[in-house]
Order: sequence, then structure tokens, then C-alpha cells
Amino acid sequence: MAFSERVDRLKSSLIREILAAAQRPEVMSFAGGLPAEPMLPEVSWERMPASIGQYGMSEGEPALREAIAEQARALGVPCAASQVLVLSGSQQALDLVSKLYIDKGTEVLLEAPTYLAALQSFQLFGADCLTVPLQADGIDLQVLRARLQRHKPAFAYLIPTFQNPSGMRYSAAKREAVAALLDEFGVTLLEDEPYRDLVFDEVEARPVVSHLRKSSWIYMGTLSKTLLPGLRVGYLIATPDLFPHLLRLKQAADLHTNRIGQWQALQWLGSEHYRQHLQALRLFYRERRDAMQLALEEHFGDIAQWHLPQGGLFFWLALKQPVDTRVLLQAALARNVAFMPGEAFFVEPERNPGYLRLNFSHVAPERMGEGLRRLAEVVRAEQKVWRESAGELSVQGA
Amino acid sequence: MAFSERVDRLKSSLIREILAAAQRPEVMSFAGGLPAEPMLPEVSWERMPASIGQYGMSEGEPALREAIAEQARALGVPCAASQVLVLSGSQQALDLVSKLYIDKGTEVLLEAPTYLAALQSFQLFGADCLTVPLQADGIDLQVLRARLQRHKPAFAYLIPTFQNPSGMRYSAAKREAVAALLDEFGVTLLEDEPYRDLVFDEVEARPVVSHLRKSSWIYMGTLSKTLLPGLRVGYLIATPDLFPHLLRLKQAADLHTNRIGQWQALQWLGSEHYRQHLQALRLFYRERRDAMQLALEEHFGDIAQWHLPQGGLFFWLALKQPVDTRVLLQAALARNVAFMPGEAFFVEPERNPGYLRLNFSHVAPERMGEGLRRLAEVVRAEQKVWRESAGELSVQGA
Repeated sequence: MAFSERVDRLKSSLIREILAAAQRPEVMSFAGGLPAEPMLPEVSWERMPASIGQYGMSEGEPALREAIAEQARALGVPCAASQVLVLSGSQQALDLVSKLYIDKGTEVLLEAPTYLAALQSFQLFGADCLTVPLQADGIDLQVLRARLQRHKPAFAYLIPTFQNPSGMRYSAAKREAVAALLDEFGVTLLEDEPYRDLVFDEVEARPVVSHLRKSSWIYMGTLSKTLLPGLRVGYLIATPDLFPHLLRLKQAADLHTNRIGQWQALQWLGSEHYRQHLQALRLFYRERRDAMQLALEEHFGDIAQWHLPQGGLFFWLALKQPVDTRVLLQAALARNVAFMPGEAFFVEPERNPGYLRLNFSHVAPERMGEGLRRLAEVVRAEQKVWRESAGELSVQGA
Repeated sequence: MAFSERVDRLKSSLIREILAAAQRPEVMSFAGGLPAEPMLPEVSWERMPASIGQYGMSEGEPALREAIAEQARALGVPCAASQVLVLSGSQQALDLVSKLYIDKGTEVLLEAPTYLAALQSFQLFGADCLTVPLQADGIDLQVLRARLQRHKPAFAYLIPTFQNPSGMRYSAAKREAVAALLDEFGVTLLEDEPYRDLVFDEVEARPVVSHLRKSSWIYMGTLSKTLLPGLRVGYLIATPDLFPHLLRLKQAADLHTNRIGQWQALQWLGSEHYRQHLQALRLFYRERRDAMQLALEEHFGDIAQWHLPQGGLFFWLALKQPVDTRVLLQAALARNVAFMPGEAFFVEPERNPGYLRLNFSHVAPERMGEGLRRLAEVVRAEQKVWRESAGELSVQGA
């Protein structure tokens, strides 16, 4: 069977397999980034015009593009509706940007850890992934400068607000500094912000693209985390030099985004009832985050470290005694608990053991304690095995 | 600006530009493949469960996959629901198949002429396109055999039922013969059937994939031509050796197809009201086809030849005195008439002048005559210019 070279780089998707396992109703899943079912808003389709059933424009619905541009301008992003491309979920931006930039061996720059599906898309197209580690207030600036001095990546892919998987938020100072560095080295920025609206404490955090003065940029957003993921409506906003290429790639990929989802999105974006819904969502998720923080302190306090996330959907745990967390998965699923092994979020999984990504939005608070108790037991058991085999090894080595 | 090599192959989309021009309400558009507005069915969203708003499976909704498989089995395609992948429009299959097979220089085999967007997708990924001409009853078997003797294309892309743009339908004998040839040479078949259900005279026309005994295959279908294109719901059915790869590529592209459109599609597929709707659609489009046939005889009878299409949405005109029909576009649009120049459907446009694709579903019958009268005038004027300059050339050459 003669497939393309790229198919050899098509990894089995850990996410898909875990999510499939997590669909059994008895499983407590900390794995995905699924919105909580009770917070899916009630939507009405009554006033949708019949003409929405017809083919539409590849750019997206004009009124929705205007509403998205207005929301972005309110965040400080200078843009017009003509720069907005409505997508079949913001995931699609990763596919389009990969097509726009990546040949085999093209260098791209990523945070470590980074969003697993982005990594998969860039690697599928053959990218060489340069990485820069994250600190508590954002990307490591010294390493970033060093990378840019030696390399000329096609773009930098950053998730500055409630980063996935780490939950970190770049400080205002770091946002400015990153933009200045990208301008200095003439590197295009791909900024991904799916979680911006899921914020528990408001602080100044303008998008990094709003600080750029020279570099081209693409800003990605979605309605999947705040409205309904099943609509599959996301978007990108791009500088005018990039937009026409992205539009043609969008058209080649799937002609245009489904118009019923776009119509529904437009009923919410910028409205008073959307503001109220976001407010309720934040309160609800903050409570779940707090419940998980308590349960984590009880069950993981002695074996892991973490930051309290100020937004987004995830805790990012660093085990004090690292083990390969992919090994834990089977034992956890056997106990009806799902989570996301941290290794999957790194370009070099083997070198980054001992992290777990835990979603706090999906499992009901009254089941969280039990789920985390089981997961901690699985971790402790594996650490014991690991210590014992390490002990044997050092005995053998002695 | 360092883009990927593939972007140099990203052609400006003629379709997109013509469709944009055709959106002006005063334009009579014979260009697109848009369903007639009056035949967009009324749909109800009342009983859609709220849970449809959540993330879904990359494969598609299980009940919809089963309904699609059942419909395909009724056509003679041996398949299970597990082989069905629901797509964001069947256009997406072209993107996924390109990713699965095409590196720079990979040979693929196409009909000449063929669907413009398929050609664009394959060329974007760097394919070398081999072509085989069409005859009145389907692809030229002798040329097909000759091509397969000398080449080993990654797949053959065929549209055997109401081919786009030519409107041809492969005879039953040719379907079997093509399948036998592909089996003999071990070539994978990508069979695209968007227009199968828009049939005006039923004859035996089983999908070519149903005749294959050895070769792998992918069968593409859509609900865009018979239900609502704005839903963006299409599908592919693939042999089990190909399905897992296509599924992963689908997940990497956009996670999953929008679930609201999938839910709506499921309300129709296989139902009695869908059968009635299809019946009404066929009657309606047959009337429009007949109206266009009359108008064509009046205005194009002396300057073009064509077959009466037995299904689909298009007439394919061959000018008796060929001119580059792309040149006609501006003059036609200036007179508020849009059409699709035939050159765009060929791998070698310069070598195939003098064809026009005319859609008969969109323009109301009472305006068709006027639209075609204007278009014929534009053609005659260009032919006159062409004759005169040819005359000058032969004078100069003499």
C-alpha cells in the first residue's frame, strides 16, 4: 500500500483513544476538555431563516465576522471584519496554518509543554519543532531569545492565556516582551486563545498580537468552550498579508463552515444573554476548580505540585517522584478513572515524565474526591514498582 | 515571507471569484451548483436534544453512520457502519485523501474533464495528474488500460454518475469494465457521487466500487445536493484497510463534523418524507432541465453541441468553433450573466478550449431564455474577434 510519506508521521491519537474509553458512563473522566453538561445553554432555532440552508461564503457569515472583529477589538486587537475567517472549530486553524507554512523540515517554535493536537498537526506536515520551556508567568524569555538567534522558525505557536496543558497565564510584562522579541526577529505569531473567556480573576492580559508592531500574526478563537462545541464554530483573525492564502486553503478544505452553527453563534456573541451566560459559567467552573483543589490537596498533597489555575479547564500536576504517566493509564481506566498523561504534550515525551493533566469541568464535584483517590492510589502503586526496580537496578549495578 | 512550497501551487479559485460575482441579485448565474431556493426543504429543530451541543465522535453520530451504510448497501455497496466517516461536506474527503496519498510527484488518475475542486486539491498537494478522456458512456477504456500499463497511480478519482462537469453517466457495462481494470492493476478507486439521487430516468447504475473484488476503495457522498448544503454534512465509506488512517486525518483536520447538521440529516435519511422530497426535487429539476434544453436549442443550437443530461445539475456545451471561454467571463458578467468556463476542469486548460458548464437548477425558467440569449451573444462576439484575428494571422502568415 503506497501512502504518502506524511502518513508515517500520523500518530495514533492518544486523545481519541482515551476519550473513547472515557465515554463509558461509569468512567470518571478528568481527560478531555469537555464543557459541563449542565452548563450547555438552551438554544432556540425558531427564528433561523430557511435561506441559511443554502451554500454560504468561504469567509463565513458577514454579520458573524463583524461580531468577532468587534469582540477582538475590545480586547485590543486591531482588526476589521475582513480579516476574520470563520472555521469549523479553531482546530481547523492548525490544519490551515500547517498547510500555509510547513514543508518537511520547516522549523516552528512551540511552548513546552504545548497543545497535543497542535503538535500532531505540525508534525504530520513534517515540521521540526523547536521548544521553549514555560515558567510561572509565561515562556522563558532567555531561551526564546537564544532560539531566535540561532533559528528562523516559520512561526511561533503560543497559548498565552490559561495555556493547555499547563494552565499558565503570561504576565502583562511577558506579553510585551514576547511581542518585542518576535518583532525584533521578524517571526510570525500564531496565538491560540480557546480559554480566554473562562477566567476566574480578571487581570490585564491583552492578546500578544495586540503588542506586535511589525510581525504578521494569526489569532485563533472558538465558541466551543463557552457556547456549544457541537456547533463546530471557531475562527481566526489574520494580518492582511496572510488572509487571502488562508481563505483559499479554507475553501479547499471544506468550502465553508456550517451556516446553522454560525447563525446560532451570532445569536449569542456580543449579547447581554451571552454576558450573563459567561458569568454563570465562570462561577460554576470556579466552584469545580475549588472542589478539585480541595480534593487534590487531600489525595495528591504529598506526591505532586501544582499551581491553582486562574482560568481554563485544567490542573497540571508535576509528580515529586516522576514516573512515565502513560503507564498509569491502563490501571486508572481499570478503576474507571481517565486522565491525560503529560508526556503527550511534549516534543520529547521520554525526557518529560511525571506530569498529569486533569480536567476539572466535567466530573461532578461529589465524585471528584473518589476519582482522585483512586488515581492517587494508581500513582503510588506505580511509584512503588518504579522505586523497587530502581533499587534492584542499583543493587545489580553495585 | 517564507510559505510552504505547496502555497505556490495554490491557485486563485475561479469558482470562488465567479460565485462572489454571481451573488449580486441582478446576476443570472449558471455558474455554481446551488440547489434551487424554492426546493430547500422546511426543517424542524424542535426535537433536537440539548446533548447534541456537546463534543462528539470523530467518526460521526453512530445512528447516522448506520443510516448511511444502509443506504449504500441498498445500492449494492457492501459495507458496515464502521466503514462510514461523516465529513464536513464531501469536499473534505478530497482533502483527507490528498493527505493520505499525495507527496510531491505522486501520480493520480482523473477523468478529463473532472471536478475542478478535486483537481485543485490534488495539485495543491503536488500530484502529477494523469488523465483519461470521457466518452458518451463513460471513461475511455483503451486509454485507461494504456495509462495503467505505464503508470501506477496512487488512486483513480472517478465521478461515474452525472459527472461534473460533463453530466455523463457511465453505462453498466463500463462500470464493470472499469472495476475489472482497477482490480487487474491493483489501483485504489475514489468514487465521488454527489449527484446520484438527482436522477431523471432510473437505469441500472450500481456504484463502481460495488464491482471491485480486490482493490481498496473510498466512496464519497453528500446531503448537500438533496437536503441542505448549509448543514455541511457529507461522508465517505472506505475499505477497512484505509478507514483508520482517514479517521485520524479527519480528527486532525477538525475533530468532528458539526452535530446539529448530523442530527438534522438523520431526521431525513431513509425516511418516507425524504423519499417524497427527492421525488419532488427530481420533478422540479427535470422541468428546469427541459426549460434550459429549449432555451439552448433556440440560442446555442447553431454554435454548440451537447448531450441532454439524465441527472445532476449541469449542461456541458462544446462550442463548434472553440474559443478560450475564460475570455468570455468578463463580458458575460458585464451583461449580468455568470457561467463556468470549461478550461478550469482540465489539467491542461490551454489544450481544451471551447467548453462551457451551465447549471440549470438555480435560475428561474422564465429568466433562462434571456440569460442564455445574452450569453450566446457574448460567445458570437468573441468568435467573430477570434475569426478576424485568425484571418489576420493567416494573411500575415501567407
